[in-house]
Amino acid sequence: MSAKPAVVLLSGGLDSATVLAMAAAQGFETFALSFRYGQRHAFELQAAAQMAKRLGARRHVVVDFDLRTFGGSALTTDLPVPKGRSLEQIGQEIPVTYVPARNTIFLSFALAWAETLQCTDIFIGVNALDYSGYPDCRPQYLKAFEGMANLATRAGVEGGESLTIHAPLIRMTKAQIIREGLRLGVDFALTSSCYDPGPAGRPCERCDACLLRAKGFAEAGVADPLLQRCA
Amino acid sequence: MSAKPAVVLLSGGLDSATVLAMAAAQGFETFALSFRYGQRHAFELQAAAQMAKRLGARRHVVVDFDLRTFGGSALTTDLPVPKGRSLEQIGQEIPVTYVPARNTIFLSFALAWAETLQCTDIFIGVNALDYSGYPDCRPQYLKAFEGMANLATRAGVEGGESLTIHAPLIRMTKAQIIREGLRLGVDFALTSSCYDPGPAGRPCERCDACLLRAKGFAEAGVADPLLQRCA
Repeated sequence: MSAKPAVVLLSGGLDSATVLAMAAAQGFETFALSFRYGQRHAFELQAAAQMAKRLGARRHVVVDFDLRTFGGSALTTDLPVPKGRSLEQIGQEIPVTYVPARNTIFLSFALAWAETLQCTDIFIGVNALDYSGYPDCRPQYLKAFEGMANLATRAGVEGGESLTIHAPLIRMTKAQIIREGLRLGVDFALTSSCYDPGPAGRPCERCDACLLRAKGFAEAGVADPLLQRCA
Repeated sequence: MSAKPAVVLLSGGLDSATVLAMAAAQGFETFALSFRYGQRHAFELQAAAQMAKRLGARRHVVVDFDLRTFGGSALTTDLPVPKGRSLEQIGQEIPVTYVPARNTIFLSFALAWAETLQCTDIFIGVNALDYSGYPDCRPQYLKAFEGMANLATRAGVEGGESLTIHAPLIRMTKAQIIREGLRLGVDFALTSSCYDPGPAGRPCERCDACLLRAKGFAEAGVADPLLQRCA
């Protein structure tokens, strides 16, 4: 019997790389899905491609569309990415880096691919502890998406196994995620978390994503291999 | 005070044109949203552009992505579009023209645009009577999407007016839709319903969409101006 398929959302960051490794470790045959959506940090897609290959994804698909058409976020417009915020500030309110409905769009494409693969498992690396305060990273949102998805597809009419949205990181700290990734052999030097990277993906080390990443490595008691690579 | 904004999904077909006219008649300032998703009947986008202009949409945006990557539907692959089915057959089971998760993807983009416009009204022309039997045209699906959407966005965290998914055609017959469109001045000669149109958008008159359209015009007791135009 062949392995059960799973669609895994893969941004190229630390969280989704760990999730891809976790899905593979659970025995799923993984189908990695990334998006070129007009993000200023499109460097992450190079990281995603390398990670999909390293972690043995059966396929890696990048879907293209342009959310700059709608605007509304520092990640898709010229609005400045906040830098040097305190860890107390991060997650207290929804920041300007929030991209309206991004996870809903990502999960919708994952749902489309899952249905054509006859796959009932979707993995997403959202986290509601060490996170940027985005509404579409909360457990109640994911539960609602799952309920909707189970009405949206053939299986919702014809019956069959229901779809599960797996968010294995949802209650983990960044340090726990890093330890789990390291345990599963994820090479974090290949990941890219920065919202505003420089040439060759060099992290700015001052945006919310860089600060949360630094906090995680510090709490895990290990050096970030990405900073060593870029040093 | 300026008119309230609404995002209206506009395919270029008869149903969504009527919905655009209905939203405008209700006093909304309309923002029409269409998709080039690899559909074989991309001719409908010309119809959508004309319709948006005629019906006074404030803006008309076409988002591009390619669902052919995933396959799984006769509308996005070389699978033949069923022709000459009886009206009894249509809607009895989910046909091969079903595009996995299409309405979920469409509504997700509508949600993204609505959030950047600070708009709480989305219109979609789905219909659960004279329809092709797609799971994502059912009232319970739309209700679930609305619930999810209200958790997905800033308003779901910060409070504010909740989002409403309007599906004013959901319980109407095709004949009722046609009469309502005519009452509101929609020029159906400019719409395109066919799943497999010929040159210049000429309808095949044998696919499910053409057959449901013909039944609607027959029941409404009026001639289809599109057939007159193409004659």
